[in-house]
Amino acid sequence: MAKDFSSREENYAQWYNDLVIKADLAENSAVRGCMVIKPYGYAIWERMQAALDGMFKETGHQNAYFPLFIPKSFFSKEASHVEGFAKECAVVTHYRLKTSPDGKGIVVDEDAKLEEELIVRPTSETIIWDTYRNWIQSYRDLPLLINQWANVVRWEMRTRLFLRTAEFLWQEGHTAHATEQEAIEEAKLILDVYTRFAEEWLAMPVLRGVKSPNERFAGAVETFCIEGLMQDGKALQAGTSHFLGQNFAKAFDVKFLSKENKLEYVWATSWGVSTRLMGALVMTHSDDHGLVIPPKLAPHQVVIIPIYKNADQLVEIGRKAEQIKKELEAKGIRVKYDGRDTQKPGWKFNEYEFKGVPVRIAIGPRDLENNTVEVARRDTLEKEVLQASDIAKKIDHLLEQIQSNLYQKALSFRENNTFKVDTWGEFLEKIEEGGFLLAHWDGTTETEDKIKEETKATIRTIPLDAPAEKGKCIYSGKPSERRVVFAKAY
Amino acid sequence: MAKDFSSREENYAQWYNDLVIKADLAENSAVRGCMVIKPYGYAIWERMQAALDGMFKETGHQNAYFPLFIPKSFFSKEASHVEGFAKECAVVTHYRLKTSPDGKGIVVDEDAKLEEELIVRPTSETIIWDTYRNWIQSYRDLPLLINQWANVVRWEMRTRLFLRTAEFLWQEGHTAHATEQEAIEEAKLILDVYTRFAEEWLAMPVLRGVKSPNERFAGAVETFCIEGLMQDGKALQAGTSHFLGQNFAKAFDVKFLSKENKLEYVWATSWGVSTRLMGALVMTHSDDHGLVIPPKLAPHQVVIIPIYKNADQLVEIGRKAEQIKKELEAKGIRVKYDGRDTQKPGWKFNEYEFKGVPVRIAIGPRDLENNTVEVARRDTLEKEVLQASDIAKKIDHLLEQIQSNLYQKALSFRENNTFKVDTWGEFLEKIEEGGFLLAHWDGTTETEDKIKEETKATIRTIPLDAPAEKGKCIYSGKPSERRVVFAKAY
Repeated sequence: MAKDFSSREENYAQWYNDLVIKADLAENSAVRGCMVIKPYGYAIWERMQAALDGMFKETGHQNAYFPLFIPKSFFSKEASHVEGFAKECAVVTHYRLKTSPDGKGIVVDEDAKLEEELIVRPTSETIIWDTYRNWIQSYRDLPLLINQWANVVRWEMRTRLFLRTAEFLWQEGHTAHATEQEAIEEAKLILDVYTRFAEEWLAMPVLRGVKSPNERFAGAVETFCIEGLMQDGKALQAGTSHFLGQNFAKAFDVKFLSKENKLEYVWATSWGVSTRLMGALVMTHSDDHGLVIPPKLAPHQVVIIPIYKNADQLVEIGRKAEQIKKELEAKGIRVKYDGRDTQKPGWKFNEYEFKGVPVRIAIGPRDLENNTVEVARRDTLEKEVLQASDIAKKIDHLLEQIQSNLYQKALSFRENNTFKVDTWGEFLEKIEEGGFLLAHWDGTTETEDKIKEETKATIRTIPLDAPAEKGKCIYSGKPSERRVVFAKAY
Repeated sequence: MAKDFSSREENYAQWYNDLVIKADLAENSAVRGCMVIKPYGYAIWERMQAALDGMFKETGHQNAYFPLFIPKSFFSKEASHVEGFAKECAVVTHYRLKTSPDGKGIVVDEDAKLEEELIVRPTSETIIWDTYRNWIQSYRDLPLLINQWANVVRWEMRTRLFLRTAEFLWQEGHTAHATEQEAIEEAKLILDVYTRFAEEWLAMPVLRGVKSPNERFAGAVETFCIEGLMQDGKALQAGTSHFLGQNFAKAFDVKFLSKENKLEYVWATSWGVSTRLMGALVMTHSDDHGLVIPPKLAPHQVVIIPIYKNADQLVEIGRKAEQIKKELEAKGIRVKYDGRDTQKPGWKFNEYEFKGVPVRIAIGPRDLENNTVEVARRDTLEKEVLQASDIAKKIDHLLEQIQSNLYQKALSFRENNTFKVDTWGEFLEKIEEGGFLLAHWDGTTETEDKIKEETKATIRTIPLDAPAEKGKCIYSGKPSERRVVFAKAY
């Protein structure tokens, strides 16, 4: 199995797709653009969910659930929002099927046409702000800090597993605040949470910044984002947090009585990350041997494989393996012992390497004699023989090392692929090689559009911590106050 | 708030609806038949999910995710399945909106009509079995034990919060097996899981049995179910587990090579519980004072309320409260301290009583002097003053007592409302009073239909452990082999 797929060099896009499918993360379904998330992929997603959900709750957020459907009229209420989403909506028009007149199949029952069409949510600002109108009367009802785990649908024409699918899973936070300042702070707080999650769990370094008006969420005043750099030099937007101003409060007439007894519109944020993070995970760490999963997200952190010549040896090694498994589990490590006699050790080595299990422990007859085990790490492919005593502590430490090594490796990659670019010629050359380009921009949408037209590169982010630095726009030559980050992106 | 709602006696249906809305569990949304699950309600649902998910995993199941949409043609493939669901489907026919020609709003773009309509899943057998065709080749791929947490849509005409909504949340298990026997055992294993969950977590006793052909799931060979009895004497189906035979394997051509090297159709089960359980929870335990939530599912198991005359006292009591909170939390108890000075203690007492928090601890100045606390339990409304020393152990024990008392109370209620009935006259009289009626039935759909027509009662279940007992059908007088359970139902 491990050799039956493209290398990154040969065809990066094919390598990604092969990996996702052959490592059992996901596959395409019979429904155009919709994927099936397979158990192994879903187990990783569940770990992402649990970690994020904990972070949201620690910062005072609660979960709730809002309807899948949005009445068409709600959509029109916020002008730029409908503009942004109308072209990719799944629309429900009927609520019944019936047997076809010729009795040969089923057809839509035209008598069951909805008076008003329903949109399958592409995002839930409109239905949620319609609801908040009844939940918010006074400043005492604020802030309202709510998150939802849900599926959403955007009728994308070109889809790729995890990265861009018609249906995807995500969380969407929707908060309401009494003041502008508080809402902006919330949007930034969530940006911090996303950054922490990306770096500590996904082991993926990200740039933090704001989007240019062009790339802003439809309906937002400001969009904060985190951006990762994939191994092919393309950027991937991994999460966004929007300051929505009073746009949705005005569209849905959500006012509150302030402490000063004035009726004011509520300030809003929304923010989300999705199953797209699964794509980011694969593309940040995996290699030509298969998946590489950071220990914190790996469904199995350790796999134990017996090396044996006969059934007696298997029994004896199995006993040792179970003992080690218990020791590791006592430390909270997720372990699988694969004692199947239907597959050879070599096959198992390949299989778990391909699936990205961070640590492999092999135990053979000589290990029993010497009280040793062979430990292999997936990130560096290094092997060493260790004394089995105190093994849990050693493996625990090794898992931490692997998690941190993956982050460092990805960080070095990003650093080696981030370039200051000062001329248009240099820009044209570098952008073909990939990576983040730090370049001056005159701040106009016109220039951004032209650069995109000519190079397919977009402004990924205007870094929050970018130092002020006067310069000239690489494209127009007009003055600029700081460098922004350009890249081609997923 | 606590008094501003109907009593069960006055109007049971209204009492239920008032409770769900006023205790912040859920509310109706702007979309017909779809509800909003509010944070307090969702927190209970999350606890249900976590408990069930753990039980599924312990029994070897894995989660996955399948598409929201089902191509119309898939639906027609299993004849009785489409028959059962076609009349209540949300149908997606278009994938784009556009500005209306008069520029005044948005309309469906007729140029974006789907070639084949998509059904929003009412249940996922068809899309999943279409997928399983590629996953299953050999007996080595079996059993396949998969569960999905998802939203589904059934276009119900009469909806009630949690009990019957157009969109609801649920889990649906879909398993594939090499033999008939193994599939039947799986369906029964899940019935055991559901029973254990209902009794140990919801504190709701349930009858276990099979459905009559009339009440069987559309596409099943046998439907196992658990049935609870609500306080108004109506039954509520709380979970179902279906043995699907080879129906879906045949409809979707899913075959496997057996150990004997023969190509055979796969055997299937499917099973689910939904947010309907939230309705069961409310109707099993709550009373005229508000919600009563079993400790195992309560978002807050204990609330601590300070009784004070001035700010100094509040500070001092607050210190004691925080200390007790920590002690309780160290035992894994979920505690809220409500030290707000914007609400009076009496208001808080009512609020948490209404919200069903199992235990209330009140601390006043005299308690500080005596090192005591006042402990009130929600189930019996009893209060007692306890020494604060070793309080965590006492409260832990009390929570267990409450959990078990709620179950016992519900069990007594069911026992007091279960009647053996041997004549049609008796049946007509008793069925108006409510409860489970154990009666003989001749086994025909004809009789079942007539009884339903005349009384609205249905056969809720044919108990698995019912003793063989010859008798005569209460309606037709024809011979019968055992009693079945009749009731009016939600």
